[in-house]
Amino acid sequence: MHNLPTLLVNVDVCKANIKRMAEKAANGKVAFRPHFKTHQSIEIGRWFKEVGVKSITVSSVEMADYFAVDGWNDITVAFPLVPGSIDKVNDLAQKVSLNITVSSAKNLLASIDKLTAPLGIFIEVDVGHHRTGVAPDNMREIALMVSQLASKPNLTFKGFLAHAGHSYSAKGADEVNTIYNTGVSQLVKLKSFWRETYPNIIISWGDTPTCSLIDEFWGIDEIRPGNFVFYDLTQSNIGSCNIQDIAVALICPIVDINTQRSEVAIHGGAIHLSKDTLTNANNETVYGMVCNFNGKKWGTPIDEAYIKSVSQEHGIVKFNNETPLQNLRVGDLLAVLPVHSCLTLDTMGLLSTSDGKTIETFRTRKY
Amino acid sequence: MHNLPTLLVNVDVCKANIKRMAEKAANGKVAFRPHFKTHQSIEIGRWFKEVGVKSITVSSVEMADYFAVDGWNDITVAFPLVPGSIDKVNDLAQKVSLNITVSSAKNLLASIDKLTAPLGIFIEVDVGHHRTGVAPDNMREIALMVSQLASKPNLTFKGFLAHAGHSYSAKGADEVNTIYNTGVSQLVKLKSFWRETYPNIIISWGDTPTCSLIDEFWGIDEIRPGNFVFYDLTQSNIGSCNIQDIAVALICPIVDINTQRSEVAIHGGAIHLSKDTLTNANNETVYGMVCNFNGKKWGTPIDEAYIKSVSQEHGIVKFNNETPLQNLRVGDLLAVLPVHSCLTLDTMGLLSTSDGKTIETFRTRKY
Repeated sequence: MHNLPTLLVNVDVCKANIKRMAEKAANGKVAFRPHFKTHQSIEIGRWFKEVGVKSITVSSVEMADYFAVDGWNDITVAFPLVPGSIDKVNDLAQKVSLNITVSSAKNLLASIDKLTAPLGIFIEVDVGHHRTGVAPDNMREIALMVSQLASKPNLTFKGFLAHAGHSYSAKGADEVNTIYNTGVSQLVKLKSFWRETYPNIIISWGDTPTCSLIDEFWGIDEIRPGNFVFYDLTQSNIGSCNIQDIAVALICPIVDINTQRSEVAIHGGAIHLSKDTLTNANNETVYGMVCNFNGKKWGTPIDEAYIKSVSQEHGIVKFNNETPLQNLRVGDLLAVLPVHSCLTLDTMGLLSTSDGKTIETFRTRKY
Repeated sequence: MHNLPTLLVNVDVCKANIKRMAEKAANGKVAFRPHFKTHQSIEIGRWFKEVGVKSITVSSVEMADYFAVDGWNDITVAFPLVPGSIDKVNDLAQKVSLNITVSSAKNLLASIDKLTAPLGIFIEVDVGHHRTGVAPDNMREIALMVSQLASKPNLTFKGFLAHAGHSYSAKGADEVNTIYNTGVSQLVKLKSFWRETYPNIIISWGDTPTCSLIDEFWGIDEIRPGNFVFYDLTQSNIGSCNIQDIAVALICPIVDINTQRSEVAIHGGAIHLSKDTLTNANNETVYGMVCNFNGKKWGTPIDEAYIKSVSQEHGIVKFNNETPLQNLRVGDLLAVLPVHSCLTLDTMGLLSTSDGKTIETFRTRKY
């Protein structure tokens, strides 16, 4: 084991993350529809079933199909509909309860006659991330979409869906609170207006920072966080989690040791960690933080040690100049906490558990 | 085709890149041992065979094994030896002519008795990249390694190997020339000293920028460029290639259009392009450049259009404010030139050709 970089999941920490968010949703009286794009795995999906989760979010029709095969039958595809996937949407919607999102009247018009299966439709609203979604004050555009949906008995207008992805660059709970309050206010206005005609519409809200840091889920009906299943350094930097809540680490063999530079080269680079970064307190660019590894579990991060650069296969760990590196040997293993666990999982494709079990994912299924 | 992001290779451009570098090596009287980590593919490996290439470089013993199965029998693993891979090294060295690299006497000592097969050994020298390798002026360390090798009849000291990876952050031919001249001078000194005892040792030199931009390969005996097979925006920025020499593009469906912001969201994000960036003339961070696509080939980059951000699945294309986006429709395809083609190939795993053929890679074999 661990001759090559291996992505290890701490099952206890991961299950605790799942349980905590499920309980928070229950206490907050919102539906819990976790986003499965982070773990992408049938096995970890079953850990959600253990705490009673019945509805999920995915990022493609193909991923929806992957989880439908394992018995998930209430799925939202939180990714814009493209004409090329309409046939797959119609097929899958015959088998499971499927929701999709739309964000412009023009795009909806181009596809609506081809959507023949029974489908739930969310209107995606841009609450400040500026990626996709209709502007919340664009009442005309929203009215056009709602009236198009009204003409099709097989399409059910489900409400408004938002992903506050700008919370990922927030610093601390105050900024995250502001993002939540601003976005939810906009959505509540829309819901209030439209629920006179559509009493069953809901507000569906995503993103791990707000779902982790908001104490009270006022205004919304459903949460769709994804990253919290593993968390990562980005989330611990925002304050969404503690370092101990991070459930995955990349186990990397040391391949070279440079005591003069207080640096160690590991096998573990851009094709394993991906290339997301954060900036630490010393204004250094960080590709990961480094912990000791006892063959089963990793410890807390080694003081001031961090991945300072990555190339395709290599990572360079910079240690504090006082760290004695004499005891390290080539072949020893270090554990790297990832900056962005969604990307690390996707580049690795497979997960391992500390008892040597391999967990497959949607990523590996593609081949 | 192209309902999902697809990595398209322009076969003509790719074969021209291969031919040009093979001819350059022949004219420069250096051996050509291309690094196969960029394309990772049996099929593209065969395009190298068409121009007479017989020896290759790879980044792991596993990748060496992958190409050995297709008949490659002269392979250098340009990645530090770790104890966990010694059994595989010994196995493979029974079947093919295999070279490995070492960079410290301590590490070599820890493994040398277990290296039982006939092997070529390069001493890796750090010519300024500061990733792995012994310092060129550390004569004592090098002498220790050479004398260890001398005690083992199955191990042949092959010479000095360097990867001038710092050339990737060079700007223009002058800086690249300086990197080449400085590094090669150091290696030539080492070779001059040691060839009195080992007349057959060589200098093996890597990296695409120097191999593309140096007019005359003075001092060295072998080149190991890899990225040149596809090139990318990083290389065209350095000056290693023209934009027209870039042989791969990610074909992405448009999923949302925002005329007010002059932005288009595409299906094509961090898990497809990876997250390497460059800075353009306007000091903007760029994740890719965008070209029109006619279903078979891509054109030249659209003026001032670039990928300004990526999330897991999405990319946001920023157009010049004057660009009329009214003619674009959701589902239309755009071609994205990658910042770093090695990483884009690795995240995608598969390549397509314009006549619909799929090319598999080492990456997809892992699953």
